Amino acid sequence: MKIALMNEFSQAAKNPVILNELKNATEKHGHTVFNVGMDGDNDHRLTYVHLGIIGAILLNSKAIDFVIAGCGTGQGALMALNAFPGVNCGYCLDPTDAYLFAQVNNGNALALAFAKGFGWGAELNARYMFEKAFEGEKGLGYPPERRESQNANVVILNDMKKAASKPFIEMLKSIDQDLLKQAIDGKRFQECFFKNSKDTQLTDYIKGLLK
Amino acid sequence: MKIALMNEFSQAAKNPVILNELKNATEKHGHTVFNVGMDGDNDHRLTYVHLGIIGAILLNSKAIDFVIAGCGTGQGALMALNAFPGVNCGYCLDPTDAYLFAQVNNGNALALAFAKGFGWGAELNARYMFEKAFEGEKGLGYPPERRESQNANVVILNDMKKAASKPFIEMLKSIDQDLLKQAIDGKRFQECFFKNSKDTQLTDYIKGLLK
Amino acid sequence: MKIALMNEFSQAAKNPVILNELKNATEKHGHTVFNVGMDGDNDHRLTYVHLGIIGAILLNSKAIDFVIAGCGTGQGALMALNAFPGVNCGYCLDPTDAYLFAQVNNGNALALAFAKGFGWGAELNARYMFEKAFEGEKGLGYPPERRESQNANVVILNDMKKAASKPFIEMLKSIDQDLLKQAIDGKRFQECFFKNSKDTQLTDYIKGLLK
Amino acid sequence: MKIALMNEFSQAAKNPVILNELKNATEKHGHTVFNVGMDGDNDHRLTYVHLGIIGAILLNSKAIDFVIAGCGTGQGALMALNAFPGVNCGYCLDPTDAYLFAQVNNGNALALAFAKGFGWGAELNARYMFEKAFEGEKGLGYPPERRESQNANVVILNDMKKAASKPFIEMLKSIDQDLLKQAIDGKRFQECFFKNSKDTQLTDYIKGLLK
Repeated sequence: MKIALMNEFSQAAKNPVILNELKNATEKHGHTVFNVGMDGDNDHRLTYVHLGIIGAILLNSKAIDFVIAGCGTGQGALMALNAFPGVNCGYCLDPTDAYLFAQVNNGNALALAFAKGFGWGAELNARYMFEKAFEGEKGLGYPPERRESQNANVVILNDMKKAASKPFIEMLKSIDQDLLKQAIDGKRFQECFFKNSKDTQLTDYIKGLLK
Repeated sequence: MKIALMNEFSQAAKNPVILNELKNATEKHGHTVFNVGMDGDNDHRLTYVHLGIIGAILLNSKAIDFVIAGCGTGQGALMALNAFPGVNCGYCLDPTDAYLFAQVNNGNALALAFAKGFGWGAELNARYMFEKAFEGEKGLGYPPERRESQNANVVILNDMKKAASKPFIEMLKSIDQDLLKQAIDGKRFQECFFKNSKDTQLTDYIKGLLK
Repeated sequence: MKIALMNEFSQAAKNPVILNELKNATEKHGHTVFNVGMDGDNDHRLTYVHLGIIGAILLNSKAIDFVIAGCGTGQGALMALNAFPGVNCGYCLDPTDAYLFAQVNNGNALALAFAKGFGWGAELNARYMFEKAFEGEKGLGYPPERRESQNANVVILNDMKKAASKPFIEMLKSIDQDLLKQAIDGKRFQECFFKNSKDTQLTDYIKGLLK
Repeated sequence: MKIALMNEFSQAAKNPVILNELKNATEKHGHTVFNVGMDGDNDHRLTYVHLGIIGAILLNSKAIDFVIAGCGTGQGALMALNAFPGVNCGYCLDPTDAYLFAQVNNGNALALAFAKGFGWGAELNARYMFEKAFEGEKGLGYPPERRESQNANVVILNDMKKAASKPFIEMLKSIDQDLLKQAIDGKRFQECFFKNSKDTQLTDYIKGLLK
């Protein structure tokens, strides 16, 4: 699985510790982590709204399979990510949340709180959440006997979001173009996207924006 | 403020206790609570996807100012609600979450977990969350000196969602019509919506669906 | 009620913010707060073991009615406080814990975590816990119909601790005297104790130690 | 390691699920679990005060190396256990608590909440806590560079409790003898104790009580 980590400006300083935990918890399962948001180097300023945009681009292009995002409370990131079709972003405060989200909702993004409740031992909690989010099979239901009904709801939600939305590139064309350009301005995002995108139309569109 | 409470089928049995806490915490501030989801009477079966639809209808028509929704973990409700423009749904596990969401994100919906972590004293936790979600002014920022930047992001997120989306009625027309009709089939939802909707076009459209 | 706040060295820097919240939450009910641990001024170094000793002295002398203590996780403070008869110290992470402890256990001390989980909004959580710990009547039981049995257990626990223990002054005489002298060396502790102690024998004993 | 699980009456129904998780998480490390409290069979009624007594007997006799106890909120169990020398009982709500307690406090007992917050997924949370409480070496400190100081405080606390207390058998003789006899009346407790106790004096004393 390809996993993108994205921090907004407000807690960019926490990027290295989260990145470290995410890599440790997932690389042993053969996953690859891309650090596409702010990393404290301040190369570009990203808010949670930008994270929503780049998360949606990475997931809809299948460049990335899963997004870990966060802001101060995680609420902004989760709202911005869920604004887009093709993105199902849960909110995760403890390892049980991570497990239940993987089994019940089988989503492709998690928003974390990188300031609220982030004290001593917060990197341990991140580690344990990542362990449960990325180990074993997903979508098994919880409890298991409710799997069928829970999986059905995942499909219904995704179909509804897709049907309700404009085509994705049209969505991107509709939004504030300065906002969009800021969002895609990061070098690490661009590297990850252009290397891994499986949607040539979307790739071309993003390329065009960067000219 | 008009507040809608909506439970899906899975935790419908908890509706009365949540309704009671919500009323106690908000009616004293002059707010009115509408119980528009399942109430244990099984008059119609609603999943979290349906909650997303009726929440979006109530908020976009300005029938309702705030939605409290929930499912087993709350994750399904939060993803379904955030799928729509005009809805900013946070996730809330403790009173501090409720306060921060009100001040930082100034959203209009909260998703709660009605099964995960819902043991002894869960109604107390609901009470305390409602107290902090509905007391005093909202959007004041946290910490206060970040108010301006935080409020700006709220507007940017809302504008982006609106620009990215089809017009709301067109969205409803695009989705599975059986799903939509199930969602709006509840009597208490209809009473609340038709009595309070301020959008005549949307009212007429919903009326047409019910014929 | 007289309430003592006591921070150990490890999180002494957080003393002012906790003190502020504790005062705001309790002075309006007519309670008085005494700040008897470390306050960042480094006038003396206290560990959680010292907090257990001075907490027990203040409570057993009836100088103080309630102790709020804490260390990095709160676990050290809670173990050290509960080591003594006359002290019933709970552990409190959210407002519901505070309420349940007041109603079910009716104790006289709470240990809090001042590093673990102490991030953005931690002072809000402290405020809300103090609100629920110190408002209204205590020992009402939860749920109310279990009051009698719960109150009975409080008495049984207290009686057992008292019967099992040496007399309190003898306990103090039995422990490492350097440890004891460090514990009672703080000026603010001494002021609070000598002004409010209702146990002349204990007062004389402590006075003797300070000569 | 020998681990004793002990439930009081109020949440005895949860004993099987906790026992199952505790065994799964610890037997693979070579630990043995003894289920010495209530198991739903109602063979004897135990409150958290009784748990404190039998926990202290098992730990002080070295029959058992670690105790997992609980009541509705866990607070009663933690206070009753910490009343005795030779017992260092922490309070644990999430896996990070379990890890930090093992590394910082290196105690020999944990009190859990078996009603408060015990909803959907509570057995997962128990599993994850047990995983972190019982894996790897303990007492390593957190962060590691504070190991020496943290380990020193563990010794200071233990020495203080021991010095402050009567000899353990004398403590047991001092408390209400009906309470003590109820506490030790369970067959599974007796089996565990008599088979594993390494303190012949204490064994003889308990035997005498059961005549």
